[in-house]
Amino acid sequence: MRYYAKPLNKLIQELSRLQGIGSKTAQRLAFNILAMEDKEALAIAQAIIDAKTNMKYCSVCGNLTDTDPCAICSDTSRDQSVICVVESPKEVAAMERIREFKGLYHVLHGAISPLDGIGPEDINLKSLITRLQESDVQEVILATNPNIEGEATAMYVARLIKPAGITVSRIAHGIPVGGDLEYADEVTLSKAMEGRRNL
Amino acid sequence: MRYYAKPLNKLIQELSRLQGIGSKTAQRLAFNILAMEDKEALAIAQAIIDAKTNMKYCSVCGNLTDTDPCAICSDTSRDQSVICVVESPKEVAAMERIREFKGLYHVLHGAISPLDGIGPEDINLKSLITRLQESDVQEVILATNPNIEGEATAMYVARLIKPAGITVSRIAHGIPVGGDLEYADEVTLSKAMEGRRNL
Repeated sequence: MRYYAKPLNKLIQELSRLQGIGSKTAQRLAFNILAMEDKEALAIAQAIIDAKTNMKYCSVCGNLTDTDPCAICSDTSRDQSVICVVESPKEVAAMERIREFKGLYHVLHGAISPLDGIGPEDINLKSLITRLQESDVQEVILATNPNIEGEATAMYVARLIKPAGITVSRIAHGIPVGGDLEYADEVTLSKAMEGRRNL
Repeated sequence: MRYYAKPLNKLIQELSRLQGIGSKTAQRLAFNILAMEDKEALAIAQAIIDAKTNMKYCSVCGNLTDTDPCAICSDTSRDQSVICVVESPKEVAAMERIREFKGLYHVLHGAISPLDGIGPEDINLKSLITRLQESDVQEVILATNPNIEGEATAMYVARLIKPAGITVSRIAHGIPVGGDLEYADEVTLSKAMEGRRNL
């Protein structure tokens, strides 16, 4: 049934293609867009077109970028001897937000997950090996997610790189700052005990 | 700080202008759009542009439409003697979904709300009066929302129209079908008692 005029129906339908946007939310967003100033609404459309046209993956690290190599890879003031391996560009942004890590990144675009049929050759791993062979990297920090797939990926990458004499480290697991021991799950708690440090 | 490349940042910023979309959701949606096929993402942008360009308000009833008068106003098979007054185009769609009402609509684009400084002249009311004067409408059904503003608007419109000898009715309030008496609020319950009908 056609309860709305065609262009509005089409907009609702297109918006509901977005992840996590159901038909009710798509309807709300569509009305919100129609109620906006023309300029504002067209700016959203233009931003989608621009992002889709200009964003690509960095040929060096695999991060999302509008220049190739990306701003981080081409920043000579950064420490070229450390590479932090993450699963997705979102994690690069998360790391950059803490403003502490000054090395380079490598984005795997996924994690090894045999159950989902994702093997080492399905993620952006080969280019990391080539990168390590061609440059003078001293340390690789594995910052994949602390779940089964992330751990498996970290293990796999570590075993692959270690023979080359490169230091391989894994980010620490433990109780989050501000977290509550009482409500921590058992695995996290046991990881926190395991990773205890002398004061 | 610029954690993402400019086009991506811009997309996140534009998406977060949408009502109810915070920066985290905007980020998720932006990544989702980047992960889409080019064709799909551009279809969203195009749908925004098309809707914004082609959708307007019907000069007769005020409903959102891509033709003027709208499809409902120009449908001669509909009952031209009944007008259902609603607050927004969403409610026209809700009414159409039940497929029972075959009359015409009038969209007020709001409700009278003195607290928010919205008076009778700020909603699409004048055109309703003109419409009633120029046509042979027998009944006006007031289907504004069952809240303070909607009730006040219904009262105001009723008092305005009644002297012209037109039947004015208000949609029924009561316990929603499938609802539970125990959990109904007091006002709804008292409205349900008040509106009881002989069996």
